[in-house]
Amino acid sequence: MNRRNFFKNGSLFALGTTLLNPFESAANEFDLTSFHKNKKAKNIIIIVSDGMSIGTLNMTDLYLNRKTGKGSNWLQLYKDKKVSRAMMDMASASSIVTDSAAASSSWGCGYRVKNGSLNIGTNGEEYLPIWQKFQKAGKMAGCVTTVPVTHATPAGFCISSKSRNSQEGIAELYLDLKFDVMLGGGENYFSADIRKDKRDLYKEFKDKGFTVVKNKAEMWSSDNSKPILGVFDKEGLPYSKDRESSKELTNSIPTLAEMTQRAIDKMKNHPKGFVLQVEAGKVDWAAHGNDVAGLIYDQVAHDEAIKVAIDFAEKDQNTLVIITSDHGNANPGIVYGKEANDNFDSIQKYTQTNDWILNGIGKETSVAQVIERIEYANKILLKEEEAKEILSYYTNIKLEDGLYNPRHLPLKVLGDIQKKRNSVGWISTDHSADYTELAMFGPGSQLLAPFIKNTDLHYLMLQAAEIENKF
Amino acid sequence: MNRRNFFKNGSLFALGTTLLNPFESAANEFDLTSFHKNKKAKNIIIIVSDGMSIGTLNMTDLYLNRKTGKGSNWLQLYKDKKVSRAMMDMASASSIVTDSAAASSSWGCGYRVKNGSLNIGTNGEEYLPIWQKFQKAGKMAGCVTTVPVTHATPAGFCISSKSRNSQEGIAELYLDLKFDVMLGGGENYFSADIRKDKRDLYKEFKDKGFTVVKNKAEMWSSDNSKPILGVFDKEGLPYSKDRESSKELTNSIPTLAEMTQRAIDKMKNHPKGFVLQVEAGKVDWAAHGNDVAGLIYDQVAHDEAIKVAIDFAEKDQNTLVIITSDHGNANPGIVYGKEANDNFDSIQKYTQTNDWILNGIGKETSVAQVIERIEYANKILLKEEEAKEILSYYTNIKLEDGLYNPRHLPLKVLGDIQKKRNSVGWISTDHSADYTELAMFGPGSQLLAPFIKNTDLHYLMLQAAEIENKF
Repeated sequence: MNRRNFFKNGSLFALGTTLLNPFESAANEFDLTSFHKNKKAKNIIIIVSDGMSIGTLNMTDLYLNRKTGKGSNWLQLYKDKKVSRAMMDMASASSIVTDSAAASSSWGCGYRVKNGSLNIGTNGEEYLPIWQKFQKAGKMAGCVTTVPVTHATPAGFCISSKSRNSQEGIAELYLDLKFDVMLGGGENYFSADIRKDKRDLYKEFKDKGFTVVKNKAEMWSSDNSKPILGVFDKEGLPYSKDRESSKELTNSIPTLAEMTQRAIDKMKNHPKGFVLQVEAGKVDWAAHGNDVAGLIYDQVAHDEAIKVAIDFAEKDQNTLVIITSDHGNANPGIVYGKEANDNFDSIQKYTQTNDWILNGIGKETSVAQVIERIEYANKILLKEEEAKEILSYYTNIKLEDGLYNPRHLPLKVLGDIQKKRNSVGWISTDHSADYTELAMFGPGSQLLAPFIKNTDLHYLMLQAAEIENKF
Repeated sequence: MNRRNFFKNGSLFALGTTLLNPFESAANEFDLTSFHKNKKAKNIIIIVSDGMSIGTLNMTDLYLNRKTGKGSNWLQLYKDKKVSRAMMDMASASSIVTDSAAASSSWGCGYRVKNGSLNIGTNGEEYLPIWQKFQKAGKMAGCVTTVPVTHATPAGFCISSKSRNSQEGIAELYLDLKFDVMLGGGENYFSADIRKDKRDLYKEFKDKGFTVVKNKAEMWSSDNSKPILGVFDKEGLPYSKDRESSKELTNSIPTLAEMTQRAIDKMKNHPKGFVLQVEAGKVDWAAHGNDVAGLIYDQVAHDEAIKVAIDFAEKDQNTLVIITSDHGNANPGIVYGKEANDNFDSIQKYTQTNDWILNGIGKETSVAQVIERIEYANKILLKEEEAKEILSYYTNIKLEDGLYNPRHLPLKVLGDIQKKRNSVGWISTDHSADYTELAMFGPGSQLLAPFIKNTDLHYLMLQAAEIENKF
């Protein structure tokens, strides 16, 4: 029956509750929310896309829709009316534009702290981070991420530290706190060969009873009887797009969804339940780099982790799944134009990220080689002057700056060159003040109001799990 | 009692339903939605911010919060849990990035049409626009806008036309259709002095029984017994910020909130109810111009119209209020940086829009005069080379293009110059493919699912009002 005519063929009210009615949502929504009333969240999984502007979510959903005929898992939850959702104001104590440390701390301790600090109040107060509160309540706790496990977002749930930058120190704090599963990057902060103090943190974790794993096979074969530390790369893990284009990386390094699955398997049988943070950390790095293939494919990786978590939670019935971002970054969007559809679809032909492109260029690279490299990676043919413009950043004629650009690569330049061909624009190479998108599934999701402050989420997690905030 | 300690002082469940609990939303939300069940929307008011990226809403809320201590009326409705909300996919038949004509048509007729056309299907089908459907059902119908009443957004609810550009023809169609109240700009399409065919549409409207008003005083003094045509400027009305800085404009030209009030007063006593579209049309124009003062203050004007509508609907109890945007534009956002707060607050000192600044510069203007003009309007002191850069666009050395920039003004150049001082960035000077924000208040709001297609809104309005789609 054609939906457009459904009013014609009978009484409006008779049809009002049938499947023919495209708006029969009300009853479902009630059921969803009332279903969880007075039910406790035994487990909590929070899945963060770091630095995801709403445009990143929209664009990834559109991208998947156009490529595969099916949009994102995240927005499918909206279409299926399975979640409650809100806007979240992520401001920090020092700025309307937060950084990941202050953002994670707001959820981690329930206070707004200054940018750069981890659960340390504006007057130096040291707050107990939420994963430690859950540990004290007898739950297992863990983090998985595509950036170092010592990076701001996992650290904000786990430890207190004046500065997010002391990642070697954060690794030491993890040793004492003995979280049940920590998977991600960060070799630089554990390895005796690289650490400034030459301490062999891997050995120390083993001595404390951990299984230490360094590749995908080891991760899967580790047993559940011991806590697991998995470190799969020096800093962040490779971008999903570059990983997918390399057999070696695909074989050795797990995806975010695989790490999520491993972490759930490790903790799911614990009688008192578990809490798990999952972070797509390189969505933020890609936005800093105006790197569209990096951004979309790492957002897809986040989306695949959502599926793992929701599949578990739907069976388990006692798990609250929280899906969100900690702040906007670069506010990307597809720009109007006659060729917008084709331009946007051309990204489907990209085989590598801009990170891969630009890190493979040096002073010695020729103009022809730059053109060839970008043709290989993006299937687009640069003009000679565009390639020269890129090269000028390697010969120190020009420089781009930024915390996430230590090599001063021409990230913005390449993003602008691609924009003419893929119609994707960016406002900057940095965070934005946009309120973030937040969705919740399962027991506790009924507690969510349509607009909240970041700090509210701390208390919501405790309340959903019925953990008294007595620490 | 300190919220942070509320778990300490008693049983969690005892507190679970009291005001001490920051998350006692669930019950309220149920009440809100079930409250409207089986209740018909006698009236519908749809309030559109044209070209409002989500960043525009966020930024305006932040701006108001920092300036006045109170955020936007729109997001206050979320904080008060008074509305249902959704994301809306606004794609047109021809592009993932819609224009206002195709966007308005998707709501207007329930089909996706090609960019540029108004309720004309991809195979030339002529669809009956929704305000005509409501007229046939006996309701009064009207539109108020800050752009010409013949512009794409109001036209998409009222008429069918192959091209949005035939605004003279659209004015003629309005004459035959006799909507009850049409207020906005568009003198160019009604006046015998300006129309190509020299027809005096004003006279023809009067002959048909309309009261024609041309300023605020006439608008307020018009009586309710006749339909009202109000045309207050040649094209769009002045930007709210420029209006506010001019006694003459403030006295002569009504605000969007005032026009909304007038339209409601005109139609509210009609026994069969009314439908009203309210459009903040120049939010889109300001985004096209990367014009931050234009954007924020016209978004505030939209927000004040929301208050008028909600105040009426709260008393009336039979009115569905729909608040949304038709597409993103320029995806503005506040960019990270040590000075982000102060930079963003500096916009509070702006007294004029970029539109005002740039339209007052010409070939004959000196560098010193450019500096002086921008210092007057923005309280910032340009460097000489920045002023020279702006001037070069008037001496035809350089050109900026764009549908909304017929004079080829250096909109982007000025936006970029301001960005260094106000931290607001833009991805382009054009529309984006972002899904839009949608909120609903009153009977019918319970029909809204968390993610919808633009065309769904057409059927939702009909269903909420229990109008059979038999036309």
